[in-house]
Amino acid sequence: MSTSPFTLSRRSAALAPSALREIFRLTERADIVSLAGGLPPAACFPLDALRDATQRVLADPSNTALQYGPSEGHRPLREWVAADLCRRGMPVSSDQVLITTGSQQGLDLVGKVLVDPGSPVAVEAPTYLGALQAFSMSQPRWCALEADEEGPLPQALDAVEGARFMYLLPNFQNPTGRSISAARRLSLMAAAQAADVPVVEDDPYGELWFDEPPPPPLGACWPQGTVYLGSFSKVLAPGLRLGYLVAPDALMPKIVQAKQAADLHSPSFDQRVVHEVLQSGCMATHLPRLRAHYRSQRDRMQQALAEHLPAGCQWQVPQGGMFFWVTLPVGWDAQALFPWAVEQGVAFVPGASFYALQAAHNTLRLSFVTVPPDRMQAAVAALAEAMARYAAQRQREPHREAFHAEL
Amino acid sequence: MSTSPFTLSRRSAALAPSALREIFRLTERADIVSLAGGLPPAACFPLDALRDATQRVLADPSNTALQYGPSEGHRPLREWVAADLCRRGMPVSSDQVLITTGSQQGLDLVGKVLVDPGSPVAVEAPTYLGALQAFSMSQPRWCALEADEEGPLPQALDAVEGARFMYLLPNFQNPTGRSISAARRLSLMAAAQAADVPVVEDDPYGELWFDEPPPPPLGACWPQGTVYLGSFSKVLAPGLRLGYLVAPDALMPKIVQAKQAADLHSPSFDQRVVHEVLQSGCMATHLPRLRAHYRSQRDRMQQALAEHLPAGCQWQVPQGGMFFWVTLPVGWDAQALFPWAVEQGVAFVPGASFYALQAAHNTLRLSFVTVPPDRMQAAVAALAEAMARYAAQRQREPHREAFHAEL
Repeated sequence: MSTSPFTLSRRSAALAPSALREIFRLTERADIVSLAGGLPPAACFPLDALRDATQRVLADPSNTALQYGPSEGHRPLREWVAADLCRRGMPVSSDQVLITTGSQQGLDLVGKVLVDPGSPVAVEAPTYLGALQAFSMSQPRWCALEADEEGPLPQALDAVEGARFMYLLPNFQNPTGRSISAARRLSLMAAAQAADVPVVEDDPYGELWFDEPPPPPLGACWPQGTVYLGSFSKVLAPGLRLGYLVAPDALMPKIVQAKQAADLHSPSFDQRVVHEVLQSGCMATHLPRLRAHYRSQRDRMQQALAEHLPAGCQWQVPQGGMFFWVTLPVGWDAQALFPWAVEQGVAFVPGASFYALQAAHNTLRLSFVTVPPDRMQAAVAALAEAMARYAAQRQREPHREAFHAEL
Repeated sequence: MSTSPFTLSRRSAALAPSALREIFRLTERADIVSLAGGLPPAACFPLDALRDATQRVLADPSNTALQYGPSEGHRPLREWVAADLCRRGMPVSSDQVLITTGSQQGLDLVGKVLVDPGSPVAVEAPTYLGALQAFSMSQPRWCALEADEEGPLPQALDAVEGARFMYLLPNFQNPTGRSISAARRLSLMAAAQAADVPVVEDDPYGELWFDEPPPPPLGACWPQGTVYLGSFSKVLAPGLRLGYLVAPDALMPKIVQAKQAADLHSPSFDQRVVHEVLQSGCMATHLPRLRAHYRSQRDRMQQALAEHLPAGCQWQVPQGGMFFWVTLPVGWDAQALFPWAVEQGVAFVPGASFYALQAAHNTLRLSFVTVPPDRMQAAVAALAEAMARYAAQRQREPHREAFHAEL
């Protein structure tokens, strides 16, 4: 048998196969209820608005929606983003806005433009797995930010001096569902500015608040030191793959060059469709409806968790977003629990995947948005049953976990 | 004034601002006829088919077009690509196909997975500028492939031993419009395999042939040693930003991981729309119509060039694709000619941008596809007039060129 003539780059050779791919493959099975992925339910897509927008875009005789466009993105959409951020307390100009192919691409571009192999990059523990994957392509040296219930501690900056940036999800974080408090935003950003450590602020969930909107973006405190990432995936539809990156003027030329090298520009068609939807005014009814639905789902899951989960499990009630983060009793391993859950017909994401450094193995993430309302109770009950069986097995055979972890 | 707190990565700091951005900005002026960009004319988009496809996709009650999807792409579209490549003489399975956000993204992924800083990468001279930009992010060491009229020479492999790959555009190359002959494909690929230098084959223009289809892809000669890139931009519409990458099984997992880190997956919506268009059977009439139009545009430009261009200008007549490549008299500089052309209301791309190493400054690229048929004659006449004025100026003030190059 001939060997491959290809030589892998160091960044690529170092990539470990993603454990999550297998998990998400399992969630495609019809007999599994998935609490794993954060997929907006199809019923929440503003389908009529999208249909109308698509027709209007394709009726435009200029056909620019089908043509090559500027790397920075469709100007009216960039203007909408700038106006929206101003409204949320972060004044930016549309020249600072780059439309990206999902906010995931914003992470890729940030890594390319700001990270060298070995560069320190500071992240929350845990943090968004996709960011770890994107930045990994530039082979950073991870630093974990010490935190309390209000968010990363200002004094945590001392330990990450020289970091290329801090990567933060201030609103309803993935995976923990937690937010950085208004007071902590101010003290943290002041400390960041004093330490000259810029911030990459990732905010895909900010609009998915339940009781009150989140405080202004971190970038409002230090515009020159913040790259802000936003997404249309969670408020409109992920299948359009549109997000945006907002950067200080000084950084934009390099980011635009990296964007051009990456995919020339994001789809003109989708950019125009999204802009038409936003212009139609449908968000004024769509967003409140989405928030109400997610809130009721959150309540359903909270009730089911309180009813079914065994003593020793802990969680906070998220005030927005998509996720509960559950801490299992000390010594439990969510990866070992996983096959027991699949046996009961339910899937989740073990928490270890979300840590850049030392993982807390007794953690797991539950999404409350994808599961149909009438299956929530049964899904959480099934998870609790899996926990009971896992716990019983642990008592009988304390050394069996390695076997289960390999399933 | 405060300085930026951001530190640029080495790859980013090394990026030179693209000279082309200014050129393309100029081509947006209403008083300029552009022979610069390779933009398919809007009248050539299969608008009815796209409209029907979009409606069918949005009528699908599953709404998967709006949802997250697999990183590899929409399975039926991957199957279509595999079947199409088989038909063109390169047997591949759909498991080897990754749908990309334009074929530009294929170049980005190839660079990430196969190139380390300092890795030798062999390219044609000249070659596609976007590939130079994409691979530059991985800071390769360029090697230029020696070539004759039939394509790169098999013995050129001796000079690029140890290259991570050869990057080749076998059909109607951008920028030269030239193709690699059938015989040369065989000898070149045999030499590549003997030297263990794999090939990245970029084929956005293969379907735009005028008299006869091109020979089978290079990858047909050495499937285990070839990554093949294709695009829907040139045959359907660039605004959908869809292309594809075909890789040997051994390489696919790493490429899929890089894709996932880059943008999770390409837009589900556009993938389904393109698949619907392909399924509708419209390509059977669309492609011949497109070829006939491009061919008549090629003929128009050829006639105008022969009529107007001054003695000492040389070019080949392309048998497909979008471009004429013109060599100016020895000593001329296309970048210095450029402002003279803009003064005459016409734009082109100076050839120097397309070289990784020593540029031939007396070259330029002309696109024959975007200019309206009734303006072709006048556009080429204007270019010839600019050449005459440039030549006269050169004789009067031989040292003035630096001034014009800065305009």
